[in-house]
Amino acid sequence: MGSYKQLREACYEANMELPKMDLVVYTFGNVSSVDREKGVFAIKPSGVPYEKLKPEDIVVVDFENRIVAGAMRPSSDTKTHAFLYKNWEDIGGICHTHSTYSVAWAQSQLDIPLLGTTHADHNTSDIPCAPPMADELIAGDYEHNTGRQIVDCFASKKLSYREVEMVLIGNHGPFTWGKDAAKAVYNSRVLEEIAKMAYLTLQINPNAPRLKDSLVRKHYDRKHGKDAYYGQGC
Amino acid sequence: MGSYKQLREACYEANMELPKMDLVVYTFGNVSSVDREKGVFAIKPSGVPYEKLKPEDIVVVDFENRIVAGAMRPSSDTKTHAFLYKNWEDIGGICHTHSTYSVAWAQSQLDIPLLGTTHADHNTSDIPCAPPMADELIAGDYEHNTGRQIVDCFASKKLSYREVEMVLIGNHGPFTWGKDAAKAVYNSRVLEEIAKMAYLTLQINPNAPRLKDSLVRKHYDRKHGKDAYYGQGC
Amino acid sequence: MGSYKQLREACYEANMELPKMDLVVYTFGNVSSVDREKGVFAIKPSGVPYEKLKPEDIVVVDFENRIVAGAMRPSSDTKTHAFLYKNWEDIGGICHTHSTYSVAWAQSQLDIPLLGTTHADHNTSDIPCAPPMADELIAGDYEHNTGRQIVDCFASKKLSYREVEMVLIGNHGPFTWGKDAAKAVYNSRVLEEIAKMAYLTLQINPNAPRLKDSLVRKHYDRKHGKDAYYGQGC
Amino acid sequence: MGSYKQLREACYEANMELPKMDLVVYTFGNVSSVDREKGVFAIKPSGVPYEKLKPEDIVVVDFENRIVAGAMRPSSDTKTHAFLYKNWEDIGGICHTHSTYSVAWAQSQLDIPLLGTTHADHNTSDIPCAPPMADELIAGDYEHNTGRQIVDCFASKKLSYREVEMVLIGNHGPFTWGKDAAKAVYNSRVLEEIAKMAYLTLQINPNAPRLKDSLVRKHYDRKHGKDAYYGQGC
Repeated sequence: MGSYKQLREACYEANMELPKMDLVVYTFGNVSSVDREKGVFAIKPSGVPYEKLKPEDIVVVDFENRIVAGAMRPSSDTKTHAFLYKNWEDIGGICHTHSTYSVAWAQSQLDIPLLGTTHADHNTSDIPCAPPMADELIAGDYEHNTGRQIVDCFASKKLSYREVEMVLIGNHGPFTWGKDAAKAVYNSRVLEEIAKMAYLTLQINPNAPRLKDSLVRKHYDRKHGKDAYYGQGC
Repeated sequence: MGSYKQLREACYEANMELPKMDLVVYTFGNVSSVDREKGVFAIKPSGVPYEKLKPEDIVVVDFENRIVAGAMRPSSDTKTHAFLYKNWEDIGGICHTHSTYSVAWAQSQLDIPLLGTTHADHNTSDIPCAPPMADELIAGDYEHNTGRQIVDCFASKKLSYREVEMVLIGNHGPFTWGKDAAKAVYNSRVLEEIAKMAYLTLQINPNAPRLKDSLVRKHYDRKHGKDAYYGQGC
Repeated sequence: MGSYKQLREACYEANMELPKMDLVVYTFGNVSSVDREKGVFAIKPSGVPYEKLKPEDIVVVDFENRIVAGAMRPSSDTKTHAFLYKNWEDIGGICHTHSTYSVAWAQSQLDIPLLGTTHADHNTSDIPCAPPMADELIAGDYEHNTGRQIVDCFASKKLSYREVEMVLIGNHGPFTWGKDAAKAVYNSRVLEEIAKMAYLTLQINPNAPRLKDSLVRKHYDRKHGKDAYYGQGC
Repeated sequence: MGSYKQLREACYEANMELPKMDLVVYTFGNVSSVDREKGVFAIKPSGVPYEKLKPEDIVVVDFENRIVAGAMRPSSDTKTHAFLYKNWEDIGGICHTHSTYSVAWAQSQLDIPLLGTTHADHNTSDIPCAPPMADELIAGDYEHNTGRQIVDCFASKKLSYREVEMVLIGNHGPFTWGKDAAKAVYNSRVLEEIAKMAYLTLQINPNAPRLKDSLVRKHYDRKHGKDAYYGQGC
């Protein structure tokens, strides 16, 4: 697999987590892993079932969507990944799925409200749901414009992609990211759990209040703040 | 297994996907696979548990429901399969299950609305729910008339069975089809996921809008249109 | 295991289906198997986890709840089983679980309405929910009176235990039975599926109509009527 | 592992039950096991995935949260465990998870009502939901104050921690305890099932009544009363 061996293997491993974590049926998802120095990223080939996927099937493309290595066609969502890598310089991996509860919120066109500490352990705001695209953007360079829709959504809501590592595309589904591909997949699994918990909470109590600010800060900071004391500090 | 060996094995493999994909409990489902040249199709024997099913148990019948090969009684739904094969010439396989969320919609007697891109990746319209049959059709040749009910439903709604490869029978459950038996089972799994997503969406937001036409066309065409760019093109 | 070897093994096998079919957590269930000639039945010992259960742990008791064989204490629900065996002479096995959706309906104190063919394939009426017992019956011989509550419920609703092989005890959970212990467990699994489907249906459409009589008869009779054509006829 | 070998192994075994019982995703949970004679307890290290956890990773701390044995940082929730061990002298193990349905009730800020015998088999009252903490307690010694919040909740509701071995922290999730770590985990699994059953019951029938007192007493006493006859009496 030549000089991209490590990059493709990291991408392969992250993709294989999706079925293991029950985040996909059939081929409904893709993960990419970037090499910032070389200006390329590795991504799942389009339409290949996970049980048949091999590390050497992983495609390597540059930020202009040109294939650099690999014999297969890359994911049909490749341009969305490229747009995000180009615009958000600290992202190391991106994950897209059609996981059930996340899609249900996306189809509802509603942000997922911050209702508890499971959510606050990972984010300090509601999970944003970007509105469906304008017709001319859909008719144009659709996957490229999906990336733009995400970046615009974060800009208009004044969110930082470094703090909030997940988004819903209205009517479509979730995109998540992180310092590497493994973290992007981790965020997809966390998002699915938060989406399910929020759904159940509002079924039990439609008037359930948002988590109060003092708890949002406490839980986020003990995991991610400068004096974080969660984990082994490495 | 004589000259139908390949046909029966394809049928067997497709049937064995049903428990693996969590689409059945006990014997609540059946898949068939057609050989157009010979004018026959292979189908699961009636009431045989999947864990005991063997390729040689698969029954081969013609379009008039006469057994051509096999020692067992074919599925009690055989006449429905035969009717569909006779009337829809481009179908290669048919699948029937009682999967949970699909049955819930069928029992609700409601079409599954097109709410997102997961649905549009596979269909350009709501999943139709055929009304329950008239009493005289039930009292008559019930399974044959179930096939007729499906074909009539598509005719009255002006749907093409080539574009929409799934239907709900009101109060009963789903039938799906495709170019071969494996695709028919794939469609049953996809339908179950779409049914669950639509259920959850309307619980979260009872006013969730249908997917707009520009997105319906975009998602369907990028997978199935003449310039499709999803998958490996083979 | 002496002369009851076969009886205890059938009982053991049926009990071991409960965790396999996801019908129990921990020890929340029990199955019994009767020998009509000897006037005894085998039942799970009380509080023994399924992963530790062995065929020789199964207890054999007579219809007056006297232990006939086995070193352990029988299920705390033994008297309910005994009452049903004494009063309903054609039952060969009984199963009790706390499966999730069946319990939810029992706690709702509502009959499960007959909404589709999955239900009609097994029963011709709503699944009855017996009301909670009067306080004096609870304070008395509770488990014996639970059996009486079931028999009284069937009498007052004019149901035949030969046609309807399942009941919910209000606030408690399901009891099912059948020609043998394996069939009793089968009915518990079917009931759980019917309970989940009915729950989902009424969430999607609170006005979903009951299945019409012609379809109830058709589906029940094609599996259980005198001209039944489902299965292999053996 | 020196003199705490047995304590750490019991703690390890109990922690490993959490993923097996589907009570956690990733590292969202922790179990501790106390040695009352030595005045120390063993607890999961912070942020270590279950699939990588080894018995020797378990950390031993005293009731003032000082590390006594182990090379890793203990769970970020350690002070909550310590507070409960110090105040409730008969507890042998504590379990904390973010299991889905329990968290949904916690986020709803509602007690789980006692609706059936599955609940009454384990508790004689609603599962209490402690209110979210005051801002000054959150800003202070947060995890220590979480323990205080639990103890205060039981005092104000006049509940005995010996009878009710579980609580929800509003907006956060469940804590459970018991005579040892294994029982604490058992209670977490039971709570999750009760939480799901109560959710479903109120969806089916929003007016479902509480379980009447005679049945509450009967079911609790047959398992836990002085004349208990459930289990093998050992």
